[in-house]
Amino acid sequence: MLKVGLLGAGRIAGVHATAISSHPGSALVAVSDFIPENAEKLATQYGCAARTTDDIIADESINAVLIATSTDTHSDLIEAATAAGKAVLCEKPVDLSLERAQACLGSVSRTGKPVMIGFNRRFDPNFSALRTALEAGEIGRAELLSITSFDPAPPPISYIKVSGGLFRDMMIHDFDMANFLMGGAPEAISAFGSSIVDPQIGAAGDVDTAVVTLTYGDGRIAVIKNSRRAVYGYDQRVEILGSEGLLQAQNMLENTVVKSTAAGVSSAKPTYFFLERYMPSYVTEWAAFVTAVETGAPLPVTLEDGVLALAMAEAATRSVAQCRPVKLSEVLE
Amino acid sequence: MLKVGLLGAGRIAGVHATAISSHPGSALVAVSDFIPENAEKLATQYGCAARTTDDIIADESINAVLIATSTDTHSDLIEAATAAGKAVLCEKPVDLSLERAQACLGSVSRTGKPVMIGFNRRFDPNFSALRTALEAGEIGRAELLSITSFDPAPPPISYIKVSGGLFRDMMIHDFDMANFLMGGAPEAISAFGSSIVDPQIGAAGDVDTAVVTLTYGDGRIAVIKNSRRAVYGYDQRVEILGSEGLLQAQNMLENTVVKSTAAGVSSAKPTYFFLERYMPSYVTEWAAFVTAVETGAPLPVTLEDGVLALAMAEAATRSVAQCRPVKLSEVLE
Amino acid sequence: MLKVGLLGAGRIAGVHATAISSHPGSALVAVSDFIPENAEKLATQYGCAARTTDDIIADESINAVLIATSTDTHSDLIEAATAAGKAVLCEKPVDLSLERAQACLGSVSRTGKPVMIGFNRRFDPNFSALRTALEAGEIGRAELLSITSFDPAPPPISYIKVSGGLFRDMMIHDFDMANFLMGGAPEAISAFGSSIVDPQIGAAGDVDTAVVTLTYGDGRIAVIKNSRRAVYGYDQRVEILGSEGLLQAQNMLENTVVKSTAAGVSSAKPTYFFLERYMPSYVTEWAAFVTAVETGAPLPVTLEDGVLALAMAEAATRSVAQCRPVKLSEVLE
Amino acid sequence: MLKVGLLGAGRIAGVHATAISSHPGSALVAVSDFIPENAEKLATQYGCAARTTDDIIADESINAVLIATSTDTHSDLIEAATAAGKAVLCEKPVDLSLERAQACLGSVSRTGKPVMIGFNRRFDPNFSALRTALEAGEIGRAELLSITSFDPAPPPISYIKVSGGLFRDMMIHDFDMANFLMGGAPEAISAFGSSIVDPQIGAAGDVDTAVVTLTYGDGRIAVIKNSRRAVYGYDQRVEILGSEGLLQAQNMLENTVVKSTAAGVSSAKPTYFFLERYMPSYVTEWAAFVTAVETGAPLPVTLEDGVLALAMAEAATRSVAQCRPVKLSEVLE
Repeated sequence: MLKVGLLGAGRIAGVHATAISSHPGSALVAVSDFIPENAEKLATQYGCAARTTDDIIADESINAVLIATSTDTHSDLIEAATAAGKAVLCEKPVDLSLERAQACLGSVSRTGKPVMIGFNRRFDPNFSALRTALEAGEIGRAELLSITSFDPAPPPISYIKVSGGLFRDMMIHDFDMANFLMGGAPEAISAFGSSIVDPQIGAAGDVDTAVVTLTYGDGRIAVIKNSRRAVYGYDQRVEILGSEGLLQAQNMLENTVVKSTAAGVSSAKPTYFFLERYMPSYVTEWAAFVTAVETGAPLPVTLEDGVLALAMAEAATRSVAQCRPVKLSEVLE
Repeated sequence: MLKVGLLGAGRIAGVHATAISSHPGSALVAVSDFIPENAEKLATQYGCAARTTDDIIADESINAVLIATSTDTHSDLIEAATAAGKAVLCEKPVDLSLERAQACLGSVSRTGKPVMIGFNRRFDPNFSALRTALEAGEIGRAELLSITSFDPAPPPISYIKVSGGLFRDMMIHDFDMANFLMGGAPEAISAFGSSIVDPQIGAAGDVDTAVVTLTYGDGRIAVIKNSRRAVYGYDQRVEILGSEGLLQAQNMLENTVVKSTAAGVSSAKPTYFFLERYMPSYVTEWAAFVTAVETGAPLPVTLEDGVLALAMAEAATRSVAQCRPVKLSEVLE
Repeated sequence: MLKVGLLGAGRIAGVHATAISSHPGSALVAVSDFIPENAEKLATQYGCAARTTDDIIADESINAVLIATSTDTHSDLIEAATAAGKAVLCEKPVDLSLERAQACLGSVSRTGKPVMIGFNRRFDPNFSALRTALEAGEIGRAELLSITSFDPAPPPISYIKVSGGLFRDMMIHDFDMANFLMGGAPEAISAFGSSIVDPQIGAAGDVDTAVVTLTYGDGRIAVIKNSRRAVYGYDQRVEILGSEGLLQAQNMLENTVVKSTAAGVSSAKPTYFFLERYMPSYVTEWAAFVTAVETGAPLPVTLEDGVLALAMAEAATRSVAQCRPVKLSEVLE
Repeated sequence: MLKVGLLGAGRIAGVHATAISSHPGSALVAVSDFIPENAEKLATQYGCAARTTDDIIADESINAVLIATSTDTHSDLIEAATAAGKAVLCEKPVDLSLERAQACLGSVSRTGKPVMIGFNRRFDPNFSALRTALEAGEIGRAELLSITSFDPAPPPISYIKVSGGLFRDMMIHDFDMANFLMGGAPEAISAFGSSIVDPQIGAAGDVDTAVVTLTYGDGRIAVIKNSRRAVYGYDQRVEILGSEGLLQAQNMLENTVVKSTAAGVSSAKPTYFFLERYMPSYVTEWAAFVTAVETGAPLPVTLEDGVLALAMAEAATRSVAQCRPVKLSEVLE
């Protein structure tokens, strides 16, 4: 039985608390938050202790921590927790600074402790089924990957300003999805972006609409489209053309009702946002973490994966600024 | 906080245990089963006591019981629990005997205690959204209802023999769905059935394939199709034609992946069986029960609804035997 | 080269004129109509002669006639044309009177001339593909057939009065579709109907909404649903459950555009009515007729098929009137 | 009545012959081909004369010519026909040389004669309905356009070598579609391509898989994906995200049959190639040309549109070669 400390008590922490509690192989024993009242509340709901982060990390009876705090604390907490001998599941991104993330990777490597990054979309039943079919060779060799990833509405400008930008904050999930499906990193990245949804986002130095092309050494190509606004809901689709066919993962809908009237035929919208769409993925993600920690099997998402996605975000940011393709090697040097 | 005793510890009881535990307004305090080990196991998992059924019913601190035992015990347990002052949620059907179910309804009426019957499909998000649209007048006045309800595979012949027959065991859900959507009972029922899936089912005196037509006093018509075998999975669809349009609730699929190859275009099958398809409905059903009990609001499914569906099954059985339309009034007399 | 006379110059005759002209193996040489101006107009458009019906039938150089006149003339024209040695393609129904249709069948048999009835839906690419899959055993043995057939709007009451009623005028197509897919006639027919769309239709002695169940000697069941009004367009669907799966033929849509907005997801309606939906079927039907006549191969739809569908309409009419299942043998005696 | 000469008697010329003949406002009077037997054959089928190209152009009674010859003759024939006072509908592309196409545009301008380029996809009912919805503001302001355009199989290498390359031969249709939907030309073009489908295509100096990003002065972005091989058929889809929603035009399928078995759910493939998919568009295209010529209304696709699409192909070719974004102004200078 894995004894787990939860660092952070916000909305996503609540989702993780449910997953930890309902898993037969793990128990939620403590929770911390920089607002102690939030930790108290979550602790009461799940029958565990509200403690400080330091206290949790120092507690030798706790085997694992789930880090669901703000991004700027991730690297420090990963290092502290692994140094204290704990297994770690940390929400993405590792850090906004590639350099800091790489340093964190170095520290962790020396401890040998397992650190998994929360790219939960890998555990979405749709993307996961798509990858299984791809790996089984059902469409032959992959040639051209397309990822569509639109949020329902942009976050507040105050959030945009500290987010690290669309590529580090939003498209980082899609970079990881590309790596997950293509089985590794691209050679070069060409990014195009604009702030057509909201000029204030442009004024804050960010883009809200972007198309990024990834090219691979063997001729494969991937294209990622992001928009901060799709008024009809969270649009999360993947398709990949192979030598023997096409695989598509389409949106989940709120329900299956179809209405036909003189005005036309209408159906339900995509599930609204990431909590609705990806709820099952958090449960599967946690189960995969527990299995890997308990059996010593390879982690399904590594800290290296987190660093790689961040490097791609860095390259995309540079590509937009310099209006040219950027090799991943330029960024990783 | 509703203190709940769970009678029965089989597979469906486990589903209910999760719903009761995760609801903030209810606590699972005791479980019983005629095989005590099963009750022990469930009690351990959910942190409650394993006790006898009599003990649970006698315990005044327990406010409500959920009856998930075998059908032949339902009426007795409903009567005992309501006599002991408890609110009851009982799995369908009320009884295999219409007479016994009617007697039970009489007893319960005298106690004034709330008894809800577990027609969980009313809480399925798809059927529930369809009804909401219908009630809102989105397709005008209802005219012609169709219910398709196919199981993935027939149960063992041993089960068929004690099931009460397809109409009482399987189509009873669809009779209730018709009542739910049409807002009341039909006038007459015409049933057609055969044992084309498995002649052994016919030898056991039952049908495995059936079409039932319900006619209403105002000219509306409903048709229900049942089959014990749809090899592609659990097929659960409803459509209703109205004066201003059509509403359809289609199947839930295992995932949204579509594969296109030289061999054709293929997608995932419907979710396999009732636990997969209707899992969310059990949670919503329980929440509706808690709300009704706590607020005194009308129950969303009543014991009368359970008796009515059983009467319709009785009429359908008689219609097949006598090869003629049977008025519901003939059966209810 | 088949030289063809077209009897009738109305809307459907125009559709046939195009099919005849564009087929490399047939030439439209003459057209007649009881309103001579209509025949003149069509003749000018297609570069052929406007003549009288008698004249066309008497012309020995004309090998075939296509009868697209009013129903009450069909039997007489079929008899006259076959007696004159011509091959015939006649629009459905053969006649409104089963007795007259049977007499016609007797006359035709004595001539040995090929007479095909225009059940064009057999040539619809969707229903035709469904049947091909069924015949190929792709879903094993057929068990339960469902046909949904809704018109977009009811015809004028004046038409209803002379139509022979919904079963002879509208559902006759679905009876033939059932025979086409099930490979023969049912044993008994149980019909339910009401005039819920328009009480004037009921006042005229007809129904506008109907559900008909066909039962077969071997346990198979079919159900046909008709409504005179589906405000969203022409709804023409078939599905059949077999021992190894389900086949569905869905509606054709006006276009493939899908719009997703804050208000929902909407798509195009079904093609509006039979000319839009079944246009390609008339071309294929004509080609099949030409091939059968030229090669002496069996006709894909025979006069017997037309008589059988009419007998089923007769049985359905009697079933509604007498509120009981009617054996087809009762009607055919 | 427009009297039309058809230059070219190949496969696409046959499609045009049908459209010209069946239109009530045009008559096909002559056809030519560099292989006279082909012209003879088509002339016999459609009841017109087989003549030489020079003869047709010199014939003052012929009002319009449809040019369906090989690409290298387009510019010369456009110039000759307009100089002879005829209206012209010419298959795409105008020319493989941008310079020659621009010169042709100059010559034609001086004659004032109408020249329409055969970008038939603008007349596809799906893309046309999508544009109508877009123009009507149904998804607000356009932001992000995606065009997927995959051929079922690559052409022979011999064709690849004379085709002008994927951008001029295949993607030129998509460049025009982007201009059609976005209402004008982009500012810059960034193209990525590889020969992953067939290395022989790469050896011939061409690509078979390409992703092209178009950026517009106002922040809009478009992305076009091409592949020479989609084994499941002709994949022709468009989607556009706007400030108030998304519009998608999906593939046409061969039929609407869906089969569900234990192996999964399968449906028909997209219509196989351009003749099947775009057949209706040729009829609508011709009707639009006749209307414009007869009424003097603006042509729905102009020679300028043809030159613009060619300039975009030129820019894309340069972008791949130089591995950088290329401004359209660089190419048009």
